[in-house]
Amino acid sequence: MNFIEKLTAAARKNESLLCVGLDPDPKLMPDKIPVFEFNKAIIDATCDLVCAYKPNFAFYEAMGNDGLDALKRTVEYVPEAIPTIADAKRGDIGNTSKAYAEAIFSHFKFDATTVSPYLGFDSVEPFIQYHDKGILILCRTSNAGAVDFQSLICEVENKKLPLFEIVALKAQQWNTHGNIGLVVGATYPEELKLIRQSHPDMPLLIPGIGAQGGDLATTVRYGVDAQGERAIINSSRQIIYASGEKNFAVAARRAALTLREQINQERANISR
Amino acid sequence: MNFIEKLTAAARKNESLLCVGLDPDPKLMPDKIPVFEFNKAIIDATCDLVCAYKPNFAFYEAMGNDGLDALKRTVEYVPEAIPTIADAKRGDIGNTSKAYAEAIFSHFKFDATTVSPYLGFDSVEPFIQYHDKGILILCRTSNAGAVDFQSLICEVENKKLPLFEIVALKAQQWNTHGNIGLVVGATYPEELKLIRQSHPDMPLLIPGIGAQGGDLATTVRYGVDAQGERAIINSSRQIIYASGEKNFAVAARRAALTLREQINQERANISR
Repeated sequence: MNFIEKLTAAARKNESLLCVGLDPDPKLMPDKIPVFEFNKAIIDATCDLVCAYKPNFAFYEAMGNDGLDALKRTVEYVPEAIPTIADAKRGDIGNTSKAYAEAIFSHFKFDATTVSPYLGFDSVEPFIQYHDKGILILCRTSNAGAVDFQSLICEVENKKLPLFEIVALKAQQWNTHGNIGLVVGATYPEELKLIRQSHPDMPLLIPGIGAQGGDLATTVRYGVDAQGERAIINSSRQIIYASGEKNFAVAARRAALTLREQINQERANISR
Repeated sequence: MNFIEKLTAAARKNESLLCVGLDPDPKLMPDKIPVFEFNKAIIDATCDLVCAYKPNFAFYEAMGNDGLDALKRTVEYVPEAIPTIADAKRGDIGNTSKAYAEAIFSHFKFDATTVSPYLGFDSVEPFIQYHDKGILILCRTSNAGAVDFQSLICEVENKKLPLFEIVALKAQQWNTHGNIGLVVGATYPEELKLIRQSHPDMPLLIPGIGAQGGDLATTVRYGVDAQGERAIINSSRQIIYASGEKNFAVAARRAALTLREQINQERANISR
């Protein structure tokens, strides 16, 4: 089963477009809990409520090898039916991207990864070659700095388009194996709408609701495909740090239930 | 001493603009040699001939924690006077870039790192906050795919400029602590010339000579500043895999001596 099939199956089984970001931060986690134990408790508490898990490498790398050990164990621990997305945002020259793809897909055994487009096709191609894996290309990121370059109006084939739209068009051209998706932040709803309209079938990973301020109703409305699917709506802090106390897993489940339900309400509103 | 001071001191002491890329590839290394032992032998053989070492994270990550252990030991082993550059090409939202900066500067203790600009200012800012570290922003990369986005003509303040030039201009604006440089590939000499002309004082990390095909004479001529300095000319495969046999360290030294001399010949030609 490839990534998109696995994603769709998990989303249908759990009736959920919610992706939980597993971003361990010692300043926010309960005192002295080991990272893997924290993640395990979160996964146990939420694995019937999500369509995917998305650990971001940065938080694990900041802890050195202990962190990366915990990351590997976490990916192994996620139930087989739930896809795992490496939020790695890698992108390097071909030879080097190949080594990153190997690290993410062969060593850590993720089902999908985010990649950065700045270096162009040959930096993404080694990832695409893993046909059963998902490649989620940064298009419009959720942060304030996204406007610095992604909004620049560029000339391409006698048209003028913002850079992020050109990235999306290129991603579509590169998608000969049907394993490419895009990352579009919930904090830019008009851009999300536009990308979904131009790319009706692509899976969209959508960070930026909750702590970053993206509006949930708009995100769902603009982000889902015609079947109300293929949107991977990520929440990290709102779920995993719903409580910083010993009851964090119970609180995470409660927060995930609420968010899943809110998303599903909006999906129902659209289909009405 | 900050990164640029350390770089300048090493370049002057060793009379060298050569940076050796420490990119361990099991397919090219002598049989069964542990990664750290390989790097150690290369460092021992070349540390009086270089201005910096640049390990690329990808090759270490592909080997899992053993690789990252070897990376940490390698950075520790490099003589204090020689700056180390993490070729990591990271870039994420602020909160997450902060964790990457922590990993690279606090955990691994690198003197500098490459970063990717696609996410804009707030993705680079957590790195810049380490005032004594060097931040080398990808501008024009050395690979073929560089043209996909970096060459796009963009409109900015009533001017039309290719994206990579806009990245360089932004990098200059962001350079309030004097710790930013740019990555410009030797495989695009005209672009290198242009960037050096517009940014006479910035350190430029220049990959792409040797295996990637960049011409050395042009690279030196276009890459150095008015004093014939501030160009970090990287070679990986040409040096560290000069021989794949047991004599790899001796061969690496010979290759490094030759390359340093060729670079210095060109510097002498310019100043004449």
